[in-house]
Amino acid sequence: MPRVTVHRKAHFNAAHRLFNPKWTDDKNFEVFGKCSNPNYHGHNYELIVSLTGEVDAETGYVYDLGILKDLIKTEIEDAFDHKNLNLEVEEFEKLNPSVENIAVVTYDKLRKVIEKEYDLTITLYETPRNFVTYSGS
Amino acid sequence: MPRVTVHRKAHFNAAHRLFNPKWTDDKNFEVFGKCSNPNYHGHNYELIVSLTGEVDAETGYVYDLGILKDLIKTEIEDAFDHKNLNLEVEEFEKLNPSVENIAVVTYDKLRKVIEKEYDLTITLYETPRNFVTYSGS
Amino acid sequence: MPRVTVHRKAHFNAAHRLFNPKWTDDKNFEVFGKCSNPNYHGHNYELIVSLTGEVDAETGYVYDLGILKDLIKTEIEDAFDHKNLNLEVEEFEKLNPSVENIAVVTYDKLRKVIEKEYDLTITLYETPRNFVTYSGS
Amino acid sequence: MPRVTVHRKAHFNAAHRLFNPKWTDDKNFEVFGKCSNPNYHGHNYELIVSLTGEVDAETGYVYDLGILKDLIKTEIEDAFDHKNLNLEVEEFEKLNPSVENIAVVTYDKLRKVIEKEYDLTITLYETPRNFVTYSGS
Amino acid sequence: MPRVTVHRKAHFNAAHRLFNPKWTDDKNFEVFGKCSNPNYHGHNYELIVSLTGEVDAETGYVYDLGILKDLIKTEIEDAFDHKNLNLEVEEFEKLNPSVENIAVVTYDKLRKVIEKEYDLTITLYETPRNFVTYSGS
Amino acid sequence: MPRVTVHRKAHFNAAHRLFNPKWTDDKNFEVFGKCSNPNYHGHNYELIVSLTGEVDAETGYVYDLGILKDLIKTEIEDAFDHKNLNLEVEEFEKLNPSVENIAVVTYDKLRKVIEKEYDLTITLYETPRNFVTYSGS
Repeated sequence: MPRVTVHRKAHFNAAHRLFNPKWTDDKNFEVFGKCSNPNYHGHNYELIVSLTGEVDAETGYVYDLGILKDLIKTEIEDAFDHKNLNLEVEEFEKLNPSVENIAVVTYDKLRKVIEKEYDLTITLYETPRNFVTYSGS
Repeated sequence: MPRVTVHRKAHFNAAHRLFNPKWTDDKNFEVFGKCSNPNYHGHNYELIVSLTGEVDAETGYVYDLGILKDLIKTEIEDAFDHKNLNLEVEEFEKLNPSVENIAVVTYDKLRKVIEKEYDLTITLYETPRNFVTYSGS
Repeated sequence: MPRVTVHRKAHFNAAHRLFNPKWTDDKNFEVFGKCSNPNYHGHNYELIVSLTGEVDAETGYVYDLGILKDLIKTEIEDAFDHKNLNLEVEEFEKLNPSVENIAVVTYDKLRKVIEKEYDLTITLYETPRNFVTYSGS
Repeated sequence: MPRVTVHRKAHFNAAHRLFNPKWTDDKNFEVFGKCSNPNYHGHNYELIVSLTGEVDAETGYVYDLGILKDLIKTEIEDAFDHKNLNLEVEEFEKLNPSVENIAVVTYDKLRKVIEKEYDLTITLYETPRNFVTYSGS
Repeated sequence: MPRVTVHRKAHFNAAHRLFNPKWTDDKNFEVFGKCSNPNYHGHNYELIVSLTGEVDAETGYVYDLGILKDLIKTEIEDAFDHKNLNLEVEEFEKLNPSVENIAVVTYDKLRKVIEKEYDLTITLYETPRNFVTYSGS
Repeated sequence: MPRVTVHRKAHFNAAHRLFNPKWTDDKNFEVFGKCSNPNYHGHNYELIVSLTGEVDAETGYVYDLGILKDLIKTEIEDAFDHKNLNLEVEEFEKLNPSVENIAVVTYDKLRKVIEKEYDLTITLYETPRNFVTYSGS
């Protein structure tokens, strides 16, 4: 059967600051500038989850996109949406919530619940002008 | 001369929470739900500033959009971008930073620096799905 | 209090054909061309519902957008989404489901459940290139 | 019958420079900056033509959008697309092709061929960040 | 010469239902839900056709995009646009017109008319939130 | 550390004509049609620069996007924006400024200033409907 990639869009709105807890505030400000504002700022994160696998001969599906939508909700949106990423998401307690790291954490969380036969890629927009892609390792 | 409306887009990224300081935390949560998270969340606000006036016969301009771009930067972006609206913007010390109120404040700030001969309209996107328009009073 | 317009986006996917039941098939094809295909075609309709009213001093809201989202779901999405507009939506039993008429029907359905103090405007995209606006009468 | 506005999108790609022939080159550069480059620059202009009128009871149309598409092609796209607006479009021989003036010329050209019973509005994007609206005088 | 990928966008509007003819109606509804509505629903499909090849030293082209536009029209748009995919497109007589399968069929149809020296990728949006990519086997 | 791709969007507006100086005007017109208009036409070019590398453990960055923004400005926008590509950009003195060639030139200019440890990909939109991707050789 042909191998096709299916993509599903989602979104979450969150506050964060760029912050390395091993550094002084001055050093954080020097490296991250206004993105390190201790009072936080925020973004509308737009997420694309992409799965590659064989088309099922019976359903014509690679993966049921309704199930994928629900997985994204329980694993990612419920965890990140309307949250302060630094204060309320355990993965970022000691990890700077840069868009790169948020994409890696998103990948790791979804990789655990999506069967290994599917390749997984995460695309994450922090703004319409800045975004990242991550496919594991 | 013909009257034309010119529109200029801009954007700022900010943290906020919906919060009425006259209410208890419970009442705030009851009315605003997760939008009232005391740790804040945030958005990429997309702004459109619209000015209506006569086309100048010499320049073909209603308003120099380079000057408008600079006004938006000094009056709005410098005040709101990468800020916590509740904590760091004086207009929201006692005013809930709902997207409606942010649009009204944006209008009021720009109205002071744009000549009265121009009609002014503010369009403000809190997310791609929720946005508001305000033209004064 | 300032009068602000709040906009909420939604969407539904439906099949339809342009068809005047008082005309012969030949006349329908002559006027509507391939849009009158008796086997139907379809669209992703993108809807913007706009309400104008005063900002509430306590909440900073013109209208609770969560409530509006739910109203759009029960009144419009549940009625139109994944439906054949000609066959399954009673308003179009004798009314051609042109994008103009779908917007008027959408307006009429929402006008009944939204308090009269709010002005209501419907914007409906049939495709990214063809869309309509309707504000009543 | 209800009055509805129908919108049709189109586009053209053209070269231009901002230039007032009554001024010296220095004065043009002082007012228009790099937009006055004598070797020209260019844009993908995105156009929305909006007509307001009554919905026809037989067709459900305000205006046949296929006819409107053809009118936009013969009146606007054939005149402006892949052209140098300053050198090749007679309306701009003595008129600065600012986005405001291009919108007014577009309005005037379409106004002549669209029946008076329809209100006409032109929206013209010079870039995704700068655009104008014109509805006649 | 450098190898570059050129992308061309197109679109078609069609009705379909998800349906496996080997299953009962109940089984189809159980698997596909409202997407299996026997009266059909529909979509604005947005298509991106991507060809990778060497840049021609004389023309600066990988592939003449005007020719590609015409190929997409004759092979895909004329076959799918304003059609009922289940009833009127022979490839889907026994094949479920899921977005995955439509992309595979689109690939197969274009692969026959595009020279083998070009790599071919199909991206197909069923909605702005659900889309697929296919590059052959 | 994980390897992530970071993407940054930018844009420039320029005039050009498709033109092979080794050919007669007739031959140029035969091959390039209206795109070869000797008076030029123009586009809003939308650029995406993509860098792939390891996430830095201290900063959470693959590459400082503020620095990338500045590099795109000095290397690409300052060179191409509001310019006539054929007349004013030395790389196109003898090279046809097709969107393919502009992407290759953009890649070559950025490749010189971005460290070799990063993979580089250029995506360049000539219009919303025509775009190219180039990753070197």
